[in-house]
Order: sequence, then structure tokens, then C-alpha cells
Amino acid sequence: MKNYITHDEWCIVEEGFHPEHNEITESLMSLGNGRMGQRGNFEEGYSGKTLLGNYVAGVYFPDKTRVGWWKNGYPNYFAKVLNACNWTGIEIRVGGELLDLNTCQIDEFRRVLNMKEGVLERTATVTLTGGRKLRIHSRRFCSMADDEAGAISYSMVPLNFTDHFTITPFLDGNIRNRDSNYDESFWNGIAHEAYGPEGYLVLETKSNPYQVEQFRVATGMKFDIKLNGMQAAATVQTASRDKYVAGTAQVEVREGQEITIYKYAVNLSSANYPHEELISKAKAYVARIAEKGFDRMYAEQVQAWAGKWEKNDITIDGDVAAQQGIRFNIFHLGQTYTGEDERLNIGPKGFTGEKYGGSTYWDTEAYCIPFYLSTADDKVARNLLVYRYKHLQKAIENAAKLGFSDGAALYPMVTMNGEECHNEWEITFEEIHRNGAIAYAIYDYARYTGDESYATDQGLEVLIGISRFWKQRINWSEEKGQYVMLGVTGPNEYENNVNNNWYTNYIACWTLRYTLEVIDKLWKEDSRKLNEVIFKTNLQLNTELADWKHIVDNMHYPFDENRQVYLQQQGFLDKELLTVADIAEQRPINQRWSWDRILRSCFIKQADVLQGLYFFEHEFDEATIRRNFEFYEPMTVHESSLSPCVHSILAAGLGMREKAYEMYLRTARLDLDDYNNDTEDGLHITSMAGTWMSVVKGFAGQRVKDGLLSFKPYIPEQWEGYSFRIGFRSVLLKVTVSKQSISIENASESALTVLVNDKKIFIDALASVQL
Amino acid sequence: MKNYITHDEWCIVEEGFHPEHNEITESLMSLGNGRMGQRGNFEEGYSGKTLLGNYVAGVYFPDKTRVGWWKNGYPNYFAKVLNACNWTGIEIRVGGELLDLNTCQIDEFRRVLNMKEGVLERTATVTLTGGRKLRIHSRRFCSMADDEAGAISYSMVPLNFTDHFTITPFLDGNIRNRDSNYDESFWNGIAHEAYGPEGYLVLETKSNPYQVEQFRVATGMKFDIKLNGMQAAATVQTASRDKYVAGTAQVEVREGQEITIYKYAVNLSSANYPHEELISKAKAYVARIAEKGFDRMYAEQVQAWAGKWEKNDITIDGDVAAQQGIRFNIFHLGQTYTGEDERLNIGPKGFTGEKYGGSTYWDTEAYCIPFYLSTADDKVARNLLVYRYKHLQKAIENAAKLGFSDGAALYPMVTMNGEECHNEWEITFEEIHRNGAIAYAIYDYARYTGDESYATDQGLEVLIGISRFWKQRINWSEEKGQYVMLGVTGPNEYENNVNNNWYTNYIACWTLRYTLEVIDKLWKEDSRKLNEVIFKTNLQLNTELADWKHIVDNMHYPFDENRQVYLQQQGFLDKELLTVADIAEQRPINQRWSWDRILRSCFIKQADVLQGLYFFEHEFDEATIRRNFEFYEPMTVHESSLSPCVHSILAAGLGMREKAYEMYLRTARLDLDDYNNDTEDGLHITSMAGTWMSVVKGFAGQRVKDGLLSFKPYIPEQWEGYSFRIGFRSVLLKVTVSKQSISIENASESALTVLVNDKKIFIDALASVQL
Repeated sequence: MKNYITHDEWCIVEEGFHPEHNEITESLMSLGNGRMGQRGNFEEGYSGKTLLGNYVAGVYFPDKTRVGWWKNGYPNYFAKVLNACNWTGIEIRVGGELLDLNTCQIDEFRRVLNMKEGVLERTATVTLTGGRKLRIHSRRFCSMADDEAGAISYSMVPLNFTDHFTITPFLDGNIRNRDSNYDESFWNGIAHEAYGPEGYLVLETKSNPYQVEQFRVATGMKFDIKLNGMQAAATVQTASRDKYVAGTAQVEVREGQEITIYKYAVNLSSANYPHEELISKAKAYVARIAEKGFDRMYAEQVQAWAGKWEKNDITIDGDVAAQQGIRFNIFHLGQTYTGEDERLNIGPKGFTGEKYGGSTYWDTEAYCIPFYLSTADDKVARNLLVYRYKHLQKAIENAAKLGFSDGAALYPMVTMNGEECHNEWEITFEEIHRNGAIAYAIYDYARYTGDESYATDQGLEVLIGISRFWKQRINWSEEKGQYVMLGVTGPNEYENNVNNNWYTNYIACWTLRYTLEVIDKLWKEDSRKLNEVIFKTNLQLNTELADWKHIVDNMHYPFDENRQVYLQQQGFLDKELLTVADIAEQRPINQRWSWDRILRSCFIKQADVLQGLYFFEHEFDEATIRRNFEFYEPMTVHESSLSPCVHSILAAGLGMREKAYEMYLRTARLDLDDYNNDTEDGLHITSMAGTWMSVVKGFAGQRVKDGLLSFKPYIPEQWEGYSFRIGFRSVLLKVTVSKQSISIENASESALTVLVNDKKIFIDALASVQL
Repeated sequence: MKNYITHDEWCIVEEGFHPEHNEITESLMSLGNGRMGQRGNFEEGYSGKTLLGNYVAGVYFPDKTRVGWWKNGYPNYFAKVLNACNWTGIEIRVGGELLDLNTCQIDEFRRVLNMKEGVLERTATVTLTGGRKLRIHSRRFCSMADDEAGAISYSMVPLNFTDHFTITPFLDGNIRNRDSNYDESFWNGIAHEAYGPEGYLVLETKSNPYQVEQFRVATGMKFDIKLNGMQAAATVQTASRDKYVAGTAQVEVREGQEITIYKYAVNLSSANYPHEELISKAKAYVARIAEKGFDRMYAEQVQAWAGKWEKNDITIDGDVAAQQGIRFNIFHLGQTYTGEDERLNIGPKGFTGEKYGGSTYWDTEAYCIPFYLSTADDKVARNLLVYRYKHLQKAIENAAKLGFSDGAALYPMVTMNGEECHNEWEITFEEIHRNGAIAYAIYDYARYTGDESYATDQGLEVLIGISRFWKQRINWSEEKGQYVMLGVTGPNEYENNVNNNWYTNYIACWTLRYTLEVIDKLWKEDSRKLNEVIFKTNLQLNTELADWKHIVDNMHYPFDENRQVYLQQQGFLDKELLTVADIAEQRPINQRWSWDRILRSCFIKQADVLQGLYFFEHEFDEATIRRNFEFYEPMTVHESSLSPCVHSILAAGLGMREKAYEMYLRTARLDLDDYNNDTEDGLHITSMAGTWMSVVKGFAGQRVKDGLLSFKPYIPEQWEGYSFRIGFRSVLLKVTVSKQSISIENASESALTVLVNDKKIFIDALASVQL
């Protein structure tokens, strides 16, 4: 746990340089715009501890899998998010001395991520050799308005000297992923061109034996140097070689003068442009933004972020740390995924690091979709559904590799292009509940938006594929006279290869039920459309549907008659039932205990039965949820960042306010305070949605009930008040909760009826109500 | 399955060269003498498919572990059997042309492993460029009499030409393990010396971060060249450089003359000699064997093997393939481990390859000890027990790494020096039944030899350590009101992380019972000695013994009341119960099915419940064994080489003779016919003991009953007769079984009473009985 970030409502502030935490700060201060992103590296370079990271959305490399012991069915490659060309670099020499904050004396330093504006800013005063004092001020952003572009303003003032400055803005493609399995470089240089202050590189991912697409990325730059606001009369010497272009200018800067470099850069990917047009498009793009200029781009950036905050901000009164924490999470979610492109998804590290690889986990469906449903246009969440629809064929192939047939679909645990990347049998082959979350998201979307057209159209094909998988994965137990599902890993990954995981059994049967429902609905409403789906999927109405129904009616759910709780899996009660309080000094167990001991213990990594009760709350009474919560929560160690939010929401619903707040605190500043000592690898992007949910679904009790948006708000004691924006069926509400009252403001042109504490409240267009 | 090896009673014969199978042949024709060994490589080198392999017993390297996903508790290194200096090399140039059977024309070729004599012989006629025909005849062996030495005789006759022969016997230490995890070299050169026809290399294993001993091996050679039996007057030019020494002689050989190179070599390890004496000892050793000469060494080799065959031969009449198969297995077991050194053990590949690494698996206790007990001096098996005793402290440390305490010992799955090497959680941490096999071997030794001194002395410390482990690994289930053992992998590795594996539960409780028995016995017979053990182990008589007893009395054993069979593990009956016949075309499932499918299925890799019934046959009635056999055997795919022998023995005991023979066939020629397509990696040394057991314990029904050696022999229909030698308590018997009768010959100076079909038979010294 670190504590060096200054608390501030809108900014992430590093006061004074903390070189020992530099990689953490770089992660925290990452920038992105959905299409590209980068860590908070220094433009001038840094010879100390740093992880230089630039990423282009959707561009990856199939790194050769590394395993200890090969298991049949493992994928051959693991798609790695690709560390790409460094476009922020500006080498600075002052009278020949390389500017490097690792070697010079730092007199003053402040690095700020301004989340309101989406801008990274740095001011520093350093002393170079001979006592030369230099002030530095840099600002940069990944433009939301021009989402393949970024811009930098980098100023220096020599405070007590006059000297020649040698300034070399460059593009550098000699980049390796730190997490490359075999320390290989993944890029080939294709082209390099430089003309005066302009430079272009085209890099291509290396060829691979897995028939995975090779990507090309054209990176372009143009720079402009001003001395006290006037064009500096400098000639530019260019360098252009494999994977590197640069332009060097020499400028004499007198004491007190300000020299400013404006650098404009673009990243264009072959995912969006034909190969032959990459350079010409990059040139045109660079020309356009350079013409627009830094200040106008900056203004557009501020405007774009204002628009986003308008839809998704949460304010918290009386707790700056909490305010900073929640905005930090919302900010990173907002810049990681914008929903513009249904080929993209929300990687576990976003644009903040390369660890884990892949871009898509079940986190997307279970945690992120509710956030985007409430804070962005419906199309954003819908695009995340379409992403899976487009991978359906791959999911069917993935299942076929594991011995399934006839259109059964198993979505991968981790993927870039729909193919499985993960290789750990107990997860890859057995953590199949992910399939259920993908089905649930279709339902969740329909429930929230009221738009059932996705479920009955593309959604139904996905549901049929998943239902077929469950049918084949479940078997009849003669012994029990019921259906069972053997050999799975539930959300609680501290159990492997268990039988009848309650959550997985439940979500599997729920999928079958929901699929049957959607078919039934479509049968009644649009039988012609249904026939199309039947034809396309070769669905056997008289056998498959009956089979599904039979499973739904005869599934085994492990249950403790004594305690009247669902059992996480068969045999759970054979364990020694301890509580987390019993092993306080031995936590985190994933760092202290051997794996077998973790498996044998009753301790739970993340919500499992409770994850199910959270998803399907409407199918259980409160007493049942309470009993299960009281049984499982004390055994849960929350060693996944995805766990506390679910507990926070359930506890809030059960009126266990202290527990709800305790759980909220575990999610809110996870990365900001580096709880798990791993922020240097990048941020936990997907779990950030959980923090948002803890406030909106937890403290404010937001649900959808019978098509109505519903709230049951309360304030955690520690706060004075809070507010959040929420979009629902084309209406944008601002909900403000204070100690005294609840007010709901309707900023839209249409009226909306909501439920507050189960009472219907009508809110007129552009009106507000106070309760 | 290959079929190119000629059937022969005493020899493994390759008629005509099979370059496509060369690595298989090299494995089959490996030589060893317990201290060193090598694959059947060509002396002159070979540019085609070959795995050059030389190994020195006990010399290994801690290769950095390779894992996909690290789990707490994994060891940092995997000790690899080390491919060592090549001492067999003799480079041959004929008029400048390098002799290489991959490039010249082969007119005749025959490679023979003579198992009776322990000699590898090769004859070939080849045509070199210009039609020059050359006859080659080589013989070599690893000397049993001088067990750090080997000798080669390599002759050539130019059949139709006269030319200069350039002959370069060499030692080459530029060797890498093919299975190195990171393609690293493991050897450093320390010294190299060459004088005329003598050369010496000292190599040292590279330093490592694991505090694992660095080994030095001195390899020495001396050669001698004869022309038509007379000293060839050749001067020798020497080469000596890092990791390489050689001497080159030029000899003119006339048409029809025979030139013969005798090469004598030694390998001395720092495990046996101080560093500073390695070279001087190697020189003295080389001088001694060169003085002795090839012919005398050869004669001693033949004599040594005759002595071994006298004790362990099995003859089979009427089936040459079976005869060859059984002798092949006995031969390799005999040359892999001689029992001279309690620091050594029986590696899974012996001296025939480097795959898997480590030298010791539970195979030693479960399969090999019975073989050595019956076919070698008692001290051979005893040394295998002492090996584990010496590793007790490491086993306690190994358990401590996994969270156990107070002297609980978990022996490693794979080891060289007592430390765990294996890194696959479901095996390393969970396949803990290995601990039981180590306890069982102590019992087995006492039962067979009648010598209980080991059990009550060193053995008891081991038993206490293992019992303490079981105590801590077992927990009380409130639900069941019984003890349970959660999260294990049984011998059937096609199930992982199961609860209450019947075999593991049984052998755990048996260990506790046996430990209590041994303590009780010692209490009565030698309480002073018991007190020493109690003091040394800090055994708490009033608590620990009571705990063990309570577990023995209250353990849960999963059982099917319906079928009256033990359940392999809890929940086994939830599976779809198919038989192997149902999936005929899908086998082997370990190559066709994904891992999760294997796990979910009922199919069994190797005997599990049946392994327990085999070990503890005396504790079950025949009807129980039959019921379980009939239930499990049809589900067993025998995809471990260790499985069929157990089934063969049980089937024989149950009178299921066809099944017994079918199972025997699956073990007998596993490597010879390359059933599993993996013989090129080396032989399945430990499972060879199972073949021997199938004959002696299976067809001949050998057991020990109340201290008497017992037989219930029958002949498989396919055979005319068979015989085997068996040693028992200082008596050596030859048992011959024909269609008509059983004869037992006592070759010893003492009489023995045995049981044949449960009747006592007295066999006088040097007498025989016919039944």
C-alpha cells in the first residue's frame, strides 16, 4: 500500500518526484482515447526505473505459449497486447548534456493527471551540470476528438543561463514487450520516412505460424518549435532508419526565454486502413491536426471530457479521497473503451500496461456492461454484445477443439480475436461459467434498455450456441437421478475441478431457460424471424428444446438442509469451516499458502454463490440472500479485485451498511493506493466498473424493476452526500443524495417514471424532484 | 508400434540399418553398469537422426523451472539427468573422407545388443566414394567389473582398396541436454590434458542459484591401434582445448588388412572422489584397464552378466518374442541399478535418455523394490530404503514449504537429492499417495526378507514423518462425522484434485496402522531403541499415537452399497459409466481428448482402487477383489506403462487367465515394439519391473505368506513352459513350470520350505522337487 498520491477531487497529483514508484505513477497517469493509449512516461526519456508503454487498440501479437506441462486442448499462442512505437519521445540536449531526470538534480517536480480534461501535465525545475537551472512544463493528451492522434506541448525556460538546445522529436519502433514469453521482438520495420519536422514509420507485426492476422501500424509525427511564442528559426536535420525517424533542431535559448516544442502524432492501424494507404492517410492526418494546432485540440479535449463527465460523473461530498478514487475509476473506464468500434473490448490493463495479454475476459459482461449501460449510449454496450456475436463461430470452433459438437459454443477465457489464449487447464477448460455471463449480458442489455431486438436477433444465435454447450457439458447422474456438471472451476478460482458448482449449474440452467423464453417470445411475435434463426443454427425444435427443458427441471443444486444455504460445490461441507478472522496473519493466502492448501481450505477468492445471488437477485427472497451472505462472506478473502463490489452491493441491499462500506473501500482506491503491489504492471481496468456499481447499485440501490429504473438510496455515514449521473432509455438523470433528502434531476427532453424505495415517482422533462 | 527388431532369445537385433528409427534403436541398445551409461550411438559419429547420450549416475543439473502460471510452493528448479561427456567417439577418415553412415552407401548392417554378455556389437559393410568398400566391426560395453569404465574395440577392413586412415579417438564435452528448458549448456570446462594416446577432461556443472551441489566429472581415455593384431607404428598428434581432447593417428591400411582401435575410458565423479584427485585417479584407472586389455575386460563382463542372469533370468519356452521381451526388461533393470550405492536410484529413463529428469519416483517403491528383492542381494533393496531415509530431512522441509509442521514429511514426486523437482500442482502437491508407497516399501522389505531391523530402526523415523503428514493432511468432516482427505490426485492421474480417493485414504490409514504396529513391536522387543527414536523424532506418545488411532478408526472410505465396490473417489458414480469398448476408436485418450474431458470421464489411466487391492491383497477377500476388478478394469485405458502389470497379477490371482495374458502382453514389449511412440526418448525403465512381476507374481502367483515363499503357478496357454530364478532369505531357487509339472530347484547350501498351492513343500539344499 502506497500513500504518495496527493488527494484531490479532479486530479491525480504526484508532488515531488518519486523515482522508486515511477512505474506505478506511469500506470496511474496513463492516457487513452479508446483507439490508442500510453503510460505516463517522460517525453525526454528516463534512464531510471520506467516501463515505456504505447498501445494501439486491437493490435496484438500471438506470442508462443509457455507451459510447464502441455495438456491436450491448450492453445498454441497467447495474444499479447502489443507495446508499440513510442511517439512521445523528444530528446533534449542542453549544451550537449542529455536531459534525464535520473541523472540531473530535481529541484521541483509535479506530475498531474487532470481527469476533468484528460490531460497529463508535468512541471519541473532541474539543475544541470554547472548549476544551470531549467524549468520544464509539458502537457499531453490522447485526443478524444481526433481519436487516432495525440499532441504534446513541451516547454523549457533556462532560468540562469543561455545555451544551445538540441531538440530531437522522434518516433521509435525498437520496442519489446516486457512480458514477451521468449524475449522476442514482435515488430518488423516496413517503412521510414522523414522530411524536416515530419516523420513516418510503418511497423508490421512479425509473421507467425498461427494464421493470425499481421497488423501494420503507421505512426506519424510533425513538430513545431516556438521561442517565446515565435517560430524558432531552426533548420531540421532528419534521421531515418529501420524503426526510427527523427528531426533535430538546434536553437539558442537565452536566459528567461521559453522554448516550446509542439508535437503532433498519429497512429493508424491496418485494422482500419488498407496497407497501401497507411502512410498517405497518416500524412494527411498529421497535416490536419498540426494545422488545427495544440490549443484548439486541447480545447476540444476539454469539451469532449466535459461531455463524458456530464453522463457519468459521481460526486462525493465530505471525502476527497473517495471522490478522487471514484473519478479515477470512471476516467480510466472512459478512456479505455468508447464503444465506437465493435471489434474492440476492455482489456484487463487497458492502455496502462501489457500484463496478462488478451483484451477480453468475462469481466466485460459481468462488470463493465452495467457501467456502460448506465453512463453511455446504448450502442456502447450493444457493441460489446456484437463483439461476442462476431466471435460466435470461433467459440464453436473452440468448443469443437475440446470435443463438443453440433454448434455448441464455448467462449474463450481470454481472447483477442475470438480464439482462446489462456493455457491453464483448470481455468481454460473448466472456468466455463464465463459462457453464462455472456448469455446474462444479453438479458441485462434487454432489461436495461428495453430493446429486445438484440436478444431475438444476433443474441439468440449466441444463446443457442451456449445452450448447446451446456447441454453437452452436463451429464445425467444415475446415482442422483439428476443432472450434474462435473469438473468445473467457478468464479472462486480457489477451487479447481469441482463438481456441481452451484453458480455454474445455476447460470447454465438460467441460460437454457432464457433461451427457451426468447425462442417462445419470438415464436409469438415474429415467427418468420425465428425460422431464420432456426434455419441458420439448424436448431432441432423437437429434441433440443425438450432436452433443455428436461435439464432445467432436473438439475442438481448442492444445498445444505441444515443451514438452508446453497453449497458452493458438492462436498463443500467436508472442509474445515473457518473464517477469515481465524487466519488474519496469514493473508493474502495467495502469497502465503501453497496452492493445494488454498484449494483444500474453505476460503473463497471472490464471490461465487453470492455472484449468482447478485445476478439473479430477483429470483430469490431476501432471507435466502441473507443466509448465504452470512455463511459465505466470512470465508471470503477477496483476493480478486472483482470480489468486494459484489459483496458491497449485496450488503447494501441487506441493510448491512458497515459491511457495504468496508467492501466499497476495498475497491475504490485499489490502484491509487497500490493495495496489491502490482499497479506498476498497469491498472485493474475492468474491476473499476465494480467501484462505480458499489455506489450506484450499492448505496443508491439502483435496479431495473418491471422496466422501471429503481433506487433505494442511502448515504454511507462517512459521507456528507453524493450524486451520480445515470442514463436510462434516452433520459439522463442526476441523482443527488444528501443526509436530508434525495433529489433527482431530469436533464432530458422526455419525462420518466422511476421507483424510489418502491414508490413510483414521475419526473418531468427538464424537471427535478426532491424526496 | 514398430516391428523392425528381430526376435531372438538373447539379443536385440537390428538387421539392416533403419535410419528412420535410429533414435529408437539407440534407446533400445543402451548400455549401463549402474554408475554410467550411454545410448547405442555410433562411435564414428553420425550426421543423421541421433540423440547422442552419455550419463553418469547421480550427476545432475538444477535446470530453471519452466511454468506457464506459477503456483505457490513450486520448486525453483527441475533437476535434469545430465547428458555428459561423449567418451565413445572415434572419428574416422579414410583417405580424407569422413566415415559417416548417413552419407556413405550401406551394403550390410547389423547392430546387436547381446544381453547375455552386456555388449553392444555392430558389423557393417559400406561403400565410400570411388567404390571403396569398408567392413566395420565394433564392440563395446560399460564394464560391470570396473564400473567407472567402458571399453571399445573398433575394427575396419578395407575390402578392395588401400588407403591412409586418419583415426581420432576423442572425448567431447560440448554436450547439451536436448530437454534443457532454456536451451542452455550445463557444463563448464575445468581442465583438458592430452598426451599421445591419452586424454583427460574435467567438466563441472555450472553454478546455480539454488545451492545445489556442483558436480565435477573427470573423463579419461587411452587408445591403442593394432594392424592385423600388431601394434600399428603410428605417431599421435594431440589436440587439447576447452571441453575437448583427442589424439590423431595416421595409418596406411592395405586391402584386406584389419585395423583395430581399442579405446578405454573412465568417468569419475566428484560424488566419489575429491576434486583434486579426479585427474590422478582417472589416469591410474585408465592405466589399469588399458593394461588389463579389452579381451580380459570383455571376459569379466561376460562373467559378471552370467552371475546376474543366474539370479534373475526368466526363460519362456515356445514364444521367442516373449522370451526376448522379458530378458530385455531384466537386462535394463540390471544395468540401471546395481544397488552398490545408496545415493543412487532408478531413473525413469535410466541411462537411455534424459526425458522427465529426476532419478526417483514412487515407481521405485511400488514396482522396482519387489524386483530387486527377488533377484538381488537384500542390500540392493535395502539401499533403496536407505536412500529415502537419507532424504527424510528434505522431505520434512518439503512438507514445511507446503505449510506442514512438527516433523511431517512429504517425499517429493520427482527428485535427485531429496528436494522436489516437479511443478504441476495437481501432481506435485496432490499426488501424495507416493508417501504411502514409501512406507509400504519398508513393510514389503521386512515381509520379504524377514529382516525387521530396518523397519524398527531407520524405517521407523520415516514412518513417523509420513504418519505425521497424513495426520495433518486429513481433516475431520463435521458433515460426515468421519475423517476425510480432500484435494488429492490418486495413482489414476486422469482425476485431479478429488476428495477421498479410496487408495490414498487406505494407504494413509495403513501407514498409521503400520507405524503403530512397529512402535508396539519395538516397545515390546527393544524399548531402549524405541526411546531413542522417540527422542530423536520428539514423538508425543500420548497425543500423536491416539490421534493416529482415531483416524484409523474413523476414516471415510467411499463405497457403493449397490455394487459393493469401493469408489475411486467421492462422487465417482456421478460420472457417465462407460467402458473402454465404448470409445475404442478414440484411444489413446491422452492424445485425442482435451484434459477436462479426460477428467470428467470415468476412464482410468492406471490402477487406482486396484493398486490398493494389489498392495493390500491380504486384507481383502477374493470376492471383494473380483467385484472391484470387474467394475474398474473395463474402464481402465492403461495409458501409463505402470498399469497393466497390476491388472495382470490380479487377474492371474482371480483365475482370469486370458485377461492376465492380455495385460502381460501390454507390458512385455512396450519399448521393444515402441507401443507408445516414445521409445526414442529413452526406455520406460521402472515399468520394466512390472513385466517381471507379471510373470513371477502373476503367472507363478508368488507371494510371501506367514514368512514363507508361496507360489500358485500356471502356464499361459500361449507358452510351452517357463522358468525363473528367485532369491529368498539367502536361498536361490529356480522354478520351472511346464504344461505337466512344476519343478523347484534349490541351488543353495540351505534348505527352504515353500508353499505351492498352499501346501508346504520342503526343498533340501542343492536339491529339487517335482510337483
